[in-house]
Amino acid sequence: MPTIVVEVMPKAELLDPAGKAVATTLGKQGRSHFSGVRIGKRFELTVDEVTDAVLAEARELADELLSNGVIEDVVSVRVAE
Amino acid sequence: MPTIVVEVMPKAELLDPAGKAVATTLGKQGRSHFSGVRIGKRFELTVDEVTDAVLAEARELADELLSNGVIEDVVSVRVAE
Repeated sequence: MPTIVVEVMPKAELLDPAGKAVATTLGKQGRSHFSGVRIGKRFELTVDEVTDAVLAEARELADELLSNGVIEDVVSVRVAE
Repeated sequence: MPTIVVEVMPKAELLDPAGKAVATTLGKQGRSHFSGVRIGKRFELTVDEVTDAVLAEARELADELLSNGVIEDVVSVRVAE
């Protein structure tokens, strides 16, 4: 069955304490290539078929139900390969 | 600065109670196109430059630090466009 992937990240201007904790751990491990970490969400929506209407509904869901517009941005709504 | 995106999902054979709750809500709202929802994580790692070595280290991190191999699969490690 086809899958629509929705990706949501915390807004750039907000702190992300969990991401910060991972970044601090990486620094302590001497992994100096990685200067920042942010943690968001990835939703897989299983659908019967992918049509323009279903994709439009998925975009609506992403904005209204799957993300909190005050603190998060929807960065991608796409059909999984 | 370039960003490496790591995507992690709960293993297919495991229950995902949060995803199930979203799917139930969608059903109650009459959104019948969506038969299943699973919720995973999306990490953005900021790096100074993308080299084969950095990408290899990101893959290692994805397996060892960013995911729990018992319950999660790393589905993607890629450079963000």
